Amino acid sequence: MMAENIVWHNAAVTKERREERNGHRAVTLWFTGFSGSGKSTLSHAVEQRLFEMGCNTFVFDGDNVRHGLCKDLGFSDADRTENIRRIGEVARLANMAGVIALTAFISPFRKDRDMVRASMPEGDFIEIHVKCSLEKCEERDVKGLYKKARAGQIAEFTGISSPYEEPVSAEIVLDTEKLTIKECVETVIASLHTKGIVSC
Amino acid sequence: MMAENIVWHNAAVTKERREERNGHRAVTLWFTGFSGSGKSTLSHAVEQRLFEMGCNTFVFDGDNVRHGLCKDLGFSDADRTENIRRIGEVARLANMAGVIALTAFISPFRKDRDMVRASMPEGDFIEIHVKCSLEKCEERDVKGLYKKARAGQIAEFTGISSPYEEPVSAEIVLDTEKLTIKECVETVIASLHTKGIVSC
Repeated sequence: MMAENIVWHNAAVTKERREERNGHRAVTLWFTGFSGSGKSTLSHAVEQRLFEMGCNTFVFDGDNVRHGLCKDLGFSDADRTENIRRIGEVARLANMAGVIALTAFISPFRKDRDMVRASMPEGDFIEIHVKCSLEKCEERDVKGLYKKARAGQIAEFTGISSPYEEPVSAEIVLDTEKLTIKECVETVIASLHTKGIVSC
Repeated sequence: MMAENIVWHNAAVTKERREERNGHRAVTLWFTGFSGSGKSTLSHAVEQRLFEMGCNTFVFDGDNVRHGLCKDLGFSDADRTENIRRIGEVARLANMAGVIALTAFISPFRKDRDMVRASMPEGDFIEIHVKCSLEKCEERDVKGLYKKARAGQIAEFTGISSPYEEPVSAEIVLDTEKLTIKECVETVIASLHTKGIVSC
């Protein structure tokens, strides 16, 4: 019976239709910075605020990606690159589904972040530099990772034994040594308003 | 400034809160069957219907996954397994984001589909067997792939040179040799109603 109609008009539900119904554009907010800079905290705080505004959102972070989609990957340069590539792909798919994707990964290499940017439509990739000095991050050392890295118990730890390449043209910079969480959230929301991504 | 609040209550926006606001549960509709059985056609037709009902949905298929997230994978048994594992993970993430994930992949191996089922909360994985005889699929041969496979131009082609393991306890079976597209869509929607996944 189906044969005559087998070539169906696929993807009738487009990103644009979803965005129109949702009342906001679906972009990727890419948080990058040292371990302990505040990426996870801020991405969840921004998501909370966007959710309250009625937006469809999702935070991709180590908790839900590293143990699932990317559990076959380690922390070598090649694996870090593949990790970021996959996260970029799921963020892009989330955007296509009408969801604002917030990603919270150190993502230390500029070329990896630029690869993700290049894979998305113009304007969909919003790089947010969560700026905090290495000294301050190490002083916070929330998870005790810097202590372990200094003791040589963690190899290739960003800032200690592996490089971090700062964004050169991030859409948003959040200095978490100077701003409160609330101020950081307001900065992001104001920027999304200005860019016409959210309206309410 | 942020230091004192650095340990934030993460994931305050839960799957449950999203489902409540969306007015439907977020599950995975896993379409499996031969090439040409109607998986892609039906998944998009079901999505269209769910979208019109106000649901948040997304179809993962070869077009948006094979060329992106899984572009590093081929069609060996091992690569097929990894392909299905990753698709299962992105479907699970989509569910966590409140989105009904529809997947349209041959997914020929029972153990791979069962692996995805096991990775999800009970009731979130709904296996839909798009049932159509190999003979009929080959007769349709929409993409001309069976002809190529018979000519030996495509290796490891499901049904010809690679096995297809039928679901033994699929939640839904759609016989596309007997039912129209509309009847298939109604069958799925009725089942989602019965399961309490959608209400409108």
